[in-house]
Amino acid sequence: MKSKSVTVFAPATVANVATGFDILGFAIDAIGDKITASVTNETGVTIEIAGTDAPISIDPTKNTAGAPVLKLLVAKNLKNGVHLKIQKGIPLGSGMGGSAASAVGGIVAAAKVLKVKLSQEELLQYALEGEAIASGAKHSDNVAPCLYGGLTLTKPGDQPDVIRLPFPKNIFCTVVHPAMELKTSVARQVLSREITLQQHTQQTARLAALVAGMCDSNSEWIKRGLEDVLFEPQRASLIPGFAAVKAAALKAGALGSSISGAGPSVFAFSKNKATAEKVRRAMIKAFTEAGMHSQGWVSAICKTGAVAK
Amino acid sequence: MKSKSVTVFAPATVANVATGFDILGFAIDAIGDKITASVTNETGVTIEIAGTDAPISIDPTKNTAGAPVLKLLVAKNLKNGVHLKIQKGIPLGSGMGGSAASAVGGIVAAAKVLKVKLSQEELLQYALEGEAIASGAKHSDNVAPCLYGGLTLTKPGDQPDVIRLPFPKNIFCTVVHPAMELKTSVARQVLSREITLQQHTQQTARLAALVAGMCDSNSEWIKRGLEDVLFEPQRASLIPGFAAVKAAALKAGALGSSISGAGPSVFAFSKNKATAEKVRRAMIKAFTEAGMHSQGWVSAICKTGAVAK
Repeated sequence: MKSKSVTVFAPATVANVATGFDILGFAIDAIGDKITASVTNETGVTIEIAGTDAPISIDPTKNTAGAPVLKLLVAKNLKNGVHLKIQKGIPLGSGMGGSAASAVGGIVAAAKVLKVKLSQEELLQYALEGEAIASGAKHSDNVAPCLYGGLTLTKPGDQPDVIRLPFPKNIFCTVVHPAMELKTSVARQVLSREITLQQHTQQTARLAALVAGMCDSNSEWIKRGLEDVLFEPQRASLIPGFAAVKAAALKAGALGSSISGAGPSVFAFSKNKATAEKVRRAMIKAFTEAGMHSQGWVSAICKTGAVAK
Repeated sequence: MKSKSVTVFAPATVANVATGFDILGFAIDAIGDKITASVTNETGVTIEIAGTDAPISIDPTKNTAGAPVLKLLVAKNLKNGVHLKIQKGIPLGSGMGGSAASAVGGIVAAAKVLKVKLSQEELLQYALEGEAIASGAKHSDNVAPCLYGGLTLTKPGDQPDVIRLPFPKNIFCTVVHPAMELKTSVARQVLSREITLQQHTQQTARLAALVAGMCDSNSEWIKRGLEDVLFEPQRASLIPGFAAVKAAALKAGALGSSISGAGPSVFAFSKNKATAEKVRRAMIKAFTEAGMHSQGWVSAICKTGAVAK
């Protein structure tokens, strides 16, 4: 008898989005994790990792995909268990929402294969349990866009109250990942805990332009909104070549460019696919000149979020 | 011979708009200053004040309407002078953009009567000279909406780069002014100069919702965006009865309510005119119960900004 299984593609996500620190994130089509959940006869979660040599725990209590599924089994008092095959497509510590993708993909696949109906809000809460294992807190800025798709706005904390923001059709994203790992915890440590009133108002003036530009498909406003005057300057030195890579993206025609999530990946927005491709090549070249190997993707925004294939 | 004159209605404005501290502002139809500019034969600016007993300087170098006009005469090397009649409709120190209205109305009327063509950006820069006399700095969050109309987004500083944001048709504003004066300088002094990272992200999550709600006509998002978790708590105690007035507005059906500019006026948004009127009565009643006389207005958003009547 063929055992039941469901495979979910969970997209990579770009959080922060320049001025939207800890609140904005969007999903991209080009890259993601694939999670296959199969029903097993013994209760509990077993895990199998593929696509990476990185040391990822297969202990479900310590695995970002496993923990949410384990919690689901307990919460619903299910007799069966789940086997998760996690095919990592997103490089670890890349700032592209890899842990969020595994957490979201795991719970979406498991709920589907177990025929447990969960609302998007419930799925989000389960996935946040997994994200907390990876980053130490229930950050929703990668989990929300991975689950809902598109561009999402969330409140920091336990109740993110996801808003799915409009997103201009023609905008394409470039993401380039230099061959290094940067832990979110390290990237957070460099941030000053205090912000001046002036920094706050200068940053919010740009954030408001970004949001308005997204809602109103106004690329000039988006351009202004991608000027992160607060966090990017504090983190830029963690990424070798960042200034040159950003400059290369702008010179190649990008509307703007900033750090993807906590880095080290760098993203850019462009007005069309051809420009986004030109931007990708320019960014990779700049990383190479800074002595860093890198890999890059051009992608439309992923509208659907994590879905069963 | 009848001397040439131009009269301009310069609308009151609500700056900050809850979470849009120092960057958002909108103009209202219901109340404003009227400035009449007449050409005189002798160069220089003379000033006449009406509609208020408040001690407003008629020295053009110290008057918010006079200073920009004086600067224009010098910049354009004009032989004629200008007489300004300032009919104050906006109470002084009310947090409804009175100084911005006089500054904008003065320069718009003077430029028109003198037949000097100025772009909106140039008019804004002249008006900011006047605003600087009143508040000590070139704050554009009242000047911009007074000049451009509607809801504006500006960058703090000398180059505001005004963005005119979309605004939902059906939203009506209530503004209630308690019979007291609150100097902007005092209201700024109570603000902490440092903001924590957490306060910044919590506030920006709401600001982004406000902007998205305005652009997308989504009243639920606007509702969230009107929760100022950062500045309002620091300023609320400067306005006797504020908590009760805000609670009354919400109970009467307002989407949200916060301090207008630096206060002491309080504004609220409602989904329609009838609710905004109900909200107005509830707010005035709450001020009365707190021992404060007050006056209130219900208004659509003023789309045009300062224009010659």
